Amino acid sequence: MLKPIVLSFFLLVITCNAAVQDFCVADLMGPEGPAGYSCKNPANVTVADFVFTGFRAAGNTTNIINAAVSPAFAAQFPGVNGLGLSIARLDLAPGGVVPMHTHPGASELLLVVQGTIVTGFISSANNVYVKKLVKGDVMVYPQGLLHFQINGGGRTAVAFASFSSPNPGLQITDFALFGNTLPSALVEKTTFLDDAQVKKLKAVLGGSG
Amino acid sequence: MLKPIVLSFFLLVITCNAAVQDFCVADLMGPEGPAGYSCKNPANVTVADFVFTGFRAAGNTTNIINAAVSPAFAAQFPGVNGLGLSIARLDLAPGGVVPMHTHPGASELLLVVQGTIVTGFISSANNVYVKKLVKGDVMVYPQGLLHFQINGGGRTAVAFASFSSPNPGLQITDFALFGNTLPSALVEKTTFLDDAQVKKLKAVLGGSG
Amino acid sequence: MLKPIVLSFFLLVITCNAAVQDFCVADLMGPEGPAGYSCKNPANVTVADFVFTGFRAAGNTTNIINAAVSPAFAAQFPGVNGLGLSIARLDLAPGGVVPMHTHPGASELLLVVQGTIVTGFISSANNVYVKKLVKGDVMVYPQGLLHFQINGGGRTAVAFASFSSPNPGLQITDFALFGNTLPSALVEKTTFLDDAQVKKLKAVLGGSG
Amino acid sequence: MLKPIVLSFFLLVITCNAAVQDFCVADLMGPEGPAGYSCKNPANVTVADFVFTGFRAAGNTTNIINAAVSPAFAAQFPGVNGLGLSIARLDLAPGGVVPMHTHPGASELLLVVQGTIVTGFISSANNVYVKKLVKGDVMVYPQGLLHFQINGGGRTAVAFASFSSPNPGLQITDFALFGNTLPSALVEKTTFLDDAQVKKLKAVLGGSG
Amino acid sequence: MLKPIVLSFFLLVITCNAAVQDFCVADLMGPEGPAGYSCKNPANVTVADFVFTGFRAAGNTTNIINAAVSPAFAAQFPGVNGLGLSIARLDLAPGGVVPMHTHPGASELLLVVQGTIVTGFISSANNVYVKKLVKGDVMVYPQGLLHFQINGGGRTAVAFASFSSPNPGLQITDFALFGNTLPSALVEKTTFLDDAQVKKLKAVLGGSG
Amino acid sequence: MLKPIVLSFFLLVITCNAAVQDFCVADLMGPEGPAGYSCKNPANVTVADFVFTGFRAAGNTTNIINAAVSPAFAAQFPGVNGLGLSIARLDLAPGGVVPMHTHPGASELLLVVQGTIVTGFISSANNVYVKKLVKGDVMVYPQGLLHFQINGGGRTAVAFASFSSPNPGLQITDFALFGNTLPSALVEKTTFLDDAQVKKLKAVLGGSG
Repeated sequence: MLKPIVLSFFLLVITCNAAVQDFCVADLMGPEGPAGYSCKNPANVTVADFVFTGFRAAGNTTNIINAAVSPAFAAQFPGVNGLGLSIARLDLAPGGVVPMHTHPGASELLLVVQGTIVTGFISSANNVYVKKLVKGDVMVYPQGLLHFQINGGGRTAVAFASFSSPNPGLQITDFALFGNTLPSALVEKTTFLDDAQVKKLKAVLGGSG
Repeated sequence: MLKPIVLSFFLLVITCNAAVQDFCVADLMGPEGPAGYSCKNPANVTVADFVFTGFRAAGNTTNIINAAVSPAFAAQFPGVNGLGLSIARLDLAPGGVVPMHTHPGASELLLVVQGTIVTGFISSANNVYVKKLVKGDVMVYPQGLLHFQINGGGRTAVAFASFSSPNPGLQITDFALFGNTLPSALVEKTTFLDDAQVKKLKAVLGGSG
Repeated sequence: MLKPIVLSFFLLVITCNAAVQDFCVADLMGPEGPAGYSCKNPANVTVADFVFTGFRAAGNTTNIINAAVSPAFAAQFPGVNGLGLSIARLDLAPGGVVPMHTHPGASELLLVVQGTIVTGFISSANNVYVKKLVKGDVMVYPQGLLHFQINGGGRTAVAFASFSSPNPGLQITDFALFGNTLPSALVEKTTFLDDAQVKKLKAVLGGSG
Repeated sequence: MLKPIVLSFFLLVITCNAAVQDFCVADLMGPEGPAGYSCKNPANVTVADFVFTGFRAAGNTTNIINAAVSPAFAAQFPGVNGLGLSIARLDLAPGGVVPMHTHPGASELLLVVQGTIVTGFISSANNVYVKKLVKGDVMVYPQGLLHFQINGGGRTAVAFASFSSPNPGLQITDFALFGNTLPSALVEKTTFLDDAQVKKLKAVLGGSG
Repeated sequence: MLKPIVLSFFLLVITCNAAVQDFCVADLMGPEGPAGYSCKNPANVTVADFVFTGFRAAGNTTNIINAAVSPAFAAQFPGVNGLGLSIARLDLAPGGVVPMHTHPGASELLLVVQGTIVTGFISSANNVYVKKLVKGDVMVYPQGLLHFQINGGGRTAVAFASFSSPNPGLQITDFALFGNTLPSALVEKTTFLDDAQVKKLKAVLGGSG
Repeated sequence: MLKPIVLSFFLLVITCNAAVQDFCVADLMGPEGPAGYSCKNPANVTVADFVFTGFRAAGNTTNIINAAVSPAFAAQFPGVNGLGLSIARLDLAPGGVVPMHTHPGASELLLVVQGTIVTGFISSANNVYVKKLVKGDVMVYPQGLLHFQINGGGRTAVAFASFSSPNPGLQITDFALFGNTLPSALVEKTTFLDDAQVKKLKAVLGGSG
């Protein structure tokens, strides 16, 4: 038969456990290391650290690409720091597109929850894998490979992308080529694009040089 | 100026790349190792290997717990093998519950796409983190910790759980304690539950001993 | 033939090495990250940091479970920080038991050094693996799975548990279910235990709600 | 004093060690898994498995880009399988360029051993890091980010690229966009490039669609 | 109230789980990869795979070094394959010594269970950490560093070494230098040892060349 | 057609990305953890952090071993911190030797860029793998195993060693045995070397005790 005295055993255990962390909620103000952010003091951690509510409303797609990407990476969702995964919401109005891009630090699973999406990726062996997804479908993009998403129908599509890292990174090819200070001559030399094409996109995307 | 002769360079590169794999689609018939399944011959890989369509229909919740869990782990979705993530669909009819359980091999992100869900986890330090989630909310459960999901409203709730492994595992506490051949005496000795309680649940859950 | 001048080469090497760390002794006061504690300044590290002497005496088993678990995890044994392993001592008086539990962050090797221990674990596929171990026997429990230890004889048993992480965590099922603020209604809903059973164990283990 | 009898101890040890592998030379014919190729039977491993001699001669740069990349990844150099690194030789004739590309599976260190190279990478935050390297200089490109190399002088440049994986992968942006079956409409939609530009490069690089 | 119909839910779950592996017991006859041995078919796995009984008897120390090392690595103890840890038994008769050695693939925890042991390691920064351990004491040796164990008293000492890998490897310096075909001239050139010394130890340890 | 308004989308993305780090340039003054140094504030990172110019000049080989090793590990080359690789330059004048040593934390790839080098390693199974390398040849040494390099010709040889870690460590056997405070009696007991030999090398290498 059990009596309250059993507490003494458990209290000892819990004392030891006081120093144990099963998680490492990001302290965004602390030093960051190769494995992620420093851990918030566990005494100050609450359930709010493990819940992200920023996906309740749709992203704003009133822009020329008719799309919005809303990340819940470690910087936005401190609870995922150190846990090996994160998530983002994707809104694609009719005609919307998430341009060709890569995530240097993670593989991705795309889940369509509304509408249809035409999506695909290209492998190192230069094979093309493209598919039209409907509500409920999932596609996986292996780490670091070029991929894209396009609204595949006449109404807004919504999807959620899960990543195998709390910090997957995002490199949109157009933005990397035309949206910064990389000189046009270097872009042309390394992509074989024509000068007029490069200059045109640099103007649109705010690049200089 | 570029001429077709440039192909010679690229053809050389692609020859080298023929041996490169950015992915390792599971060959479920091949040998399995600690890092996952063997890779399917890349020459036979198609886009279908990277797409999972099994979530289009709701899971069958006409059971006593009014819930269904449908996994897309490496065994069901070969494309995620080796890529560090997977996903499952969760249907919770009114009154439905996913009983207390752990995933021994992964952290989890729960995304609510319909209805409301009351959910929580318990840490090694024995703190309780419980929250009612609405549509669009996400909760993260650190790897290996006990957690549960309960329908929080009057209509069916649907959620998707992403995992930080293609093979997260699933151990439902009740099933582990009462649904197998573990002798009642051992269950009672290691859980302090009463004999009548153990016998009752063993009968319900099909356990013996 | 060698002359002292060779020193010049080695001194150069050691100068470089001054910045090299083969280890990262925990600085328990510094910031913690997902990979563990910050490193103590190597200039202040001594052999005492790599030696743990807290297992010389038996743990106190004069409690109702007749058992004691004494951890040498990174928090107690700073030298293991970052090195991928740790250890604990287990004392089981006659009738003693380490209740059903998991380590969310590590696999475990149990080595019996005195007496006999009945022990086992349950897998995700719900198979039960139970064995009576004698002095010198070792059992391995895969990461995150429920397992237990019970004194298997008439005299005190002693064992040492090695872990594949300096911070394995410990979640005792009873303590997680009945020893905190998790409301009884949630426990009952997620475990199918009867209200009376839950209330009884909550009283014993100090839980509220 | 030592006598030959000590052999008995060491022979025992070596017997145990017969099963130990410190390496896993790739058996290119065996099953491949997420962690790499199967291991060649260690009894058949020779020093030739750990040495790569394919870099003695320069790569053939008589092509329109005046460059050659010669990999020694696990498929070409079986000894690096499972060891976390690999290497490639880069020859850049005057005017030569390695076009914009990524390695999805590895970070890279570029070491210039002859001539000068203008090289750079672009980060997720869209910062540009470009530098002209001379003989002996090293540049590091973080995993998965776009980077390029251009001959920076009037004579052939030679460099060696080390990678943090035996299977780093290689995705040349131009080749991924214009050298396969990805339909022109999809390229244009996801890159904002003009139709004429896309068609022109598809013709040069052998793409269809 | 619960009825047997709940089984339907759980049976569905267990069907899914049939493909789930929380472990990967080594199939020593199957292909080996960088992450370890292939997995034994889980249908054939029994509790015996997770238990090692080879440490019940002392190792044979009737040799010139008066010591015995008995490993339970993956090759001897298939249950630890893929689980990140292993163990060995060490017997040191009076005067016994485990000569200077490294484990290329793991950190080690030494636990003394009988007698006393003088032990230590040397760091990359060339610091020496030596300690005399008594029964119950633990010392940790960081991965890959030279260390040794010597019986510290007048009676047999017994210890258990845990490793942070199922395949830690073992390289005994003397054996590597003097117990194989490495030519004496190379040994002398790379160690500065005298020719007579090298020849003497080669004779004792069975080396040639 | 694209208009500057597309900027709004990209500006949102770049705002999110401001918190994203694809790299973690070492802040050598910040706290260090098991995964490496703290990250320098990305706002202060420049291309100079990713370029190492310390290999332009040969190392000084006017010492008794006629050799120099110049590391570009994380401590010397902050840009490699957290990226899984590093590099060192090796100069071997005629007769030069890099004595028998290990890298506890990394595998190594040696690339000869001038002259010839005789090099080899010894495995846990005590096999010897030795080869004479010429310009352009590469040899891989698996992690933690003893290896050496000797000038194989009549003129200075130069090589570059890449490592699978930004912090590979370096333990030169002679230096570990004879160049510190490890007592001669312990050296002799654990290596079987004669007292005269130990004393002689301790004198040369500056060891005491």
